[in-house]
Amino acid sequence: MAAAAPPPPPTPAPSAPTGLPDSDSTPVGHPLFARIRLATPLDIPHIHKLIHQMAIFEKLTHLFTATESSLASTLFKSPPFLSFTIFLLEVSSHPFEKDLNFHSQSFTPIERIFNLDHSLIDPEAETFKNGINGDVVVAGFVLFFPNFSTFLGKPGFYVEDLFVRECYRRKGLGKLLLSAVASQAVKMGYGRVEWVVLDWNVNAIKFYEEMGANVLPEWRICRLTGPALEAYRDAI
Amino acid sequence: MAAAAPPPPPTPAPSAPTGLPDSDSTPVGHPLFARIRLATPLDIPHIHKLIHQMAIFEKLTHLFTATESSLASTLFKSPPFLSFTIFLLEVSSHPFEKDLNFHSQSFTPIERIFNLDHSLIDPEAETFKNGINGDVVVAGFVLFFPNFSTFLGKPGFYVEDLFVRECYRRKGLGKLLLSAVASQAVKMGYGRVEWVVLDWNVNAIKFYEEMGANVLPEWRICRLTGPALEAYRDAI
Repeated sequence: MAAAAPPPPPTPAPSAPTGLPDSDSTPVGHPLFARIRLATPLDIPHIHKLIHQMAIFEKLTHLFTATESSLASTLFKSPPFLSFTIFLLEVSSHPFEKDLNFHSQSFTPIERIFNLDHSLIDPEAETFKNGINGDVVVAGFVLFFPNFSTFLGKPGFYVEDLFVRECYRRKGLGKLLLSAVASQAVKMGYGRVEWVVLDWNVNAIKFYEEMGANVLPEWRICRLTGPALEAYRDAI
Repeated sequence: MAAAAPPPPPTPAPSAPTGLPDSDSTPVGHPLFARIRLATPLDIPHIHKLIHQMAIFEKLTHLFTATESSLASTLFKSPPFLSFTIFLLEVSSHPFEKDLNFHSQSFTPIERIFNLDHSLIDPEAETFKNGINGDVVVAGFVLFFPNFSTFLGKPGFYVEDLFVRECYRRKGLGKLLLSAVASQAVKMGYGRVEWVVLDWNVNAIKFYEEMGANVLPEWRICRLTGPALEAYRDAI
């Protein structure tokens, strides 16, 4: 939507699909229009800020060394879904204008309308404003990539990060992002979607189990990194 | 090595590098020549048998549905290291002949000589015999693929499977396979190598920690698969 365009009435765009339990085709009160699309290199500044917020939330800023430059040099090097892939979540108080730049052979943006009881104030709206569209802001992202199950003999998706900014949480947007990955996996004939959760995060575990996931109790992650990894430079 | 060639004397091939604690440049007693090379589609029958043995070892045959066909349709679709990649471990009682088919721009085969106290009997030598070379047998494999750390802002490798056939275990071959992946990660500027281990497998945990890995106590794997995943087909 162009910045100068007058705000349309709060009715759904004809193209807005419905279907999730927490969305409805007749917005009343305070509609929040949400769109999931493939991220592009132009989104890197916003993605970098979202990752930094995630590191703060997880109290892991000491592990955060990513820069816009390091992301730019490693992401978007392959066609979508074949390697590291990012779905960006954008929200707006108005319907999204159809932007064919975001439509591709591999993915058509997903749109939903969430009807909120109260109007929502985004204290970071200016920081996460989308450069092109008037009141569109970036609200979250999910980064995933193919993994492989030798037992199934087929690929799956591993979800590395799923993040929704604080003021947009508990509205079904995280579920929408994860559902989008799961749906894409099914469409591609993949066998699994996997991710990790902290064992003390009971709310997250409950949420994931309600989405149909099993939490595997016995497996532990092994990680070789830093100087311990560097030691293998000349080991072979 | 051609099947009809006479066995050479048990001296190291000039090109055989050394360096691992459990290898030595002067084989005495019972040398075992080991080679790690990139697998090719021709190796799929052997890889399929190795995966099946792994499923038996892990008592997970109920999860084993891979076929040679499913492996052939999903593996070897990208250049090495950019997606699912397999290092194959071959062993022989004689030095390997230089096979330029296995040399590529992206990876030069790794060779080591392991000096064993006793001669080794492989009860499955016929099953795992390499079709081209006389007494070369496939002894194991490691399957890995890129993952991505948003905090580091760079890729790593995730090791999905590491398997060495029973009669070749406890000789340093598993360590050689994992070291090959770690070394490749360092060469590519990657930040981490990760894999998972069962929490009751104390021997494996000790082995991995000795290789420099940390076992992360708090993270749990979430898995969406089967009908629970299939339910997302029409959710979006």
